[in-house]
Amino acid sequence: MEKNTKVNAAILIIGNEILSGRTQDTNTGTLANWLNSIGVKVIEVRVVPDIEKMIVDTLTVLRKTYNYVFTTGGIGPTHDDITAQSVSKAFGLKYEIHKEAFKILEKYYKPGEFNEGRQKMVWMPQGAELILNPTSGAPGFSVENVFCLPGVPSILKSMLGGLKNKIVGGEPILSHTISLKTVESEIAKTITKIQNENKDVEIGSYPFFHAGKLGVSIVLRSEEKSKIDTCNAQILDFVNKRKIDIVDR
Amino acid sequence: MEKNTKVNAAILIIGNEILSGRTQDTNTGTLANWLNSIGVKVIEVRVVPDIEKMIVDTLTVLRKTYNYVFTTGGIGPTHDDITAQSVSKAFGLKYEIHKEAFKILEKYYKPGEFNEGRQKMVWMPQGAELILNPTSGAPGFSVENVFCLPGVPSILKSMLGGLKNKIVGGEPILSHTISLKTVESEIAKTITKIQNENKDVEIGSYPFFHAGKLGVSIVLRSEEKSKIDTCNAQILDFVNKRKIDIVDR
Repeated sequence: MEKNTKVNAAILIIGNEILSGRTQDTNTGTLANWLNSIGVKVIEVRVVPDIEKMIVDTLTVLRKTYNYVFTTGGIGPTHDDITAQSVSKAFGLKYEIHKEAFKILEKYYKPGEFNEGRQKMVWMPQGAELILNPTSGAPGFSVENVFCLPGVPSILKSMLGGLKNKIVGGEPILSHTISLKTVESEIAKTITKIQNENKDVEIGSYPFFHAGKLGVSIVLRSEEKSKIDTCNAQILDFVNKRKIDIVDR
Repeated sequence: MEKNTKVNAAILIIGNEILSGRTQDTNTGTLANWLNSIGVKVIEVRVVPDIEKMIVDTLTVLRKTYNYVFTTGGIGPTHDDITAQSVSKAFGLKYEIHKEAFKILEKYYKPGEFNEGRQKMVWMPQGAELILNPTSGAPGFSVENVFCLPGVPSILKSMLGGLKNKIVGGEPILSHTISLKTVESEIAKTITKIQNENKDVEIGSYPFFHAGKLGVSIVLRSEEKSKIDTCNAQILDFVNKRKIDIVDR
């Protein structure tokens, strides 16, 4: 697979509920934005069902292809939560009680409430490092370059702070957007030319239709502000010459 | 890869804007719900950037693994729209002007407006079948079991009607949800037992926290209503015995 930045990642969303259309995944956006901010570019996302073989096979490919892999979902107490056992299998590690996680949850719950279902959440791959959970107790975990987070978006978000010093990113990926009152086909040729002259800037073109407005957002992405600025100046020059209106979005 | 229904599919989302976190994908949900209704189960989703090699490699795996593949994104007029050329390469087909598509767009636009940018949208893999676009003219296309749709959600939705008789599905996948005022760990053991006794029903357990309510939704999915009913009765029996409240969501 091509890699087009220094530090990259894949996201593996685990859960039938996304594939059935029942639940809208929002964790990809949360993780991608956060990773951009620490200089890690997401190159691929995969969504797979709660089937051990698929999780193991996918993880085995992703962890060897990318610098980091983030999984979401499947670390709760129910029968359909099989991420920890699947990660154990993918790494050939024992699936066992994590003593530190056990202590955390024993303390988190009231006496007598740390029942069998909850105890399932402390079974992890041998030697896993914990990712603390300030919202609901049960920690996530990491093994080598694979970081396992929960599926519930608010809980996942609350755990990112504790992850930051475990991820070594590159330069943050900067972006700049210019929204134009035009249609893609009117600007396609020039934007292609500008892309060819600015290979280190990723130029995206996205039509929008909303709030009664129709237009195109041009998104410039790079790790270097100066390169975005050069590219932006070329686009503004073209836009002014062609008298295309710039709009707010 | 395991296949757990008669007719299955993968979705391939093409576009840097999803991977950067700029745009929230909603097409997966739209496609998954529509496919369920015609008896096609989505087993895997992948999101890849606008990089030809990644699109070609991913498509080559998915089209051989699943009955159908649906791609979204990358069929517009700009430089970052490379789905049609990538599909051509994946199938070893010529990338050429599609005469019928050319006629459709020539008629759709006012005289003189069918410019170079727009003409790019009629370049397709040789022999591609068109998927008509009632919203904005430019058609999608299919080659064998691969169906290429646009990324703009409203346009994609409007094209599904024209696709229906090209897809041969199985029995529609039915689902039933029971939402409970409880936490997952209180019901995990029993739900595991019920799952083991009802192998043909896929039971999902999803905690929810919203509108001041906290609970768990149990989702039962199967192609056979009678099997869902049996499973549902076992859950209701347990719920009543344990005096767990059923809540609306």
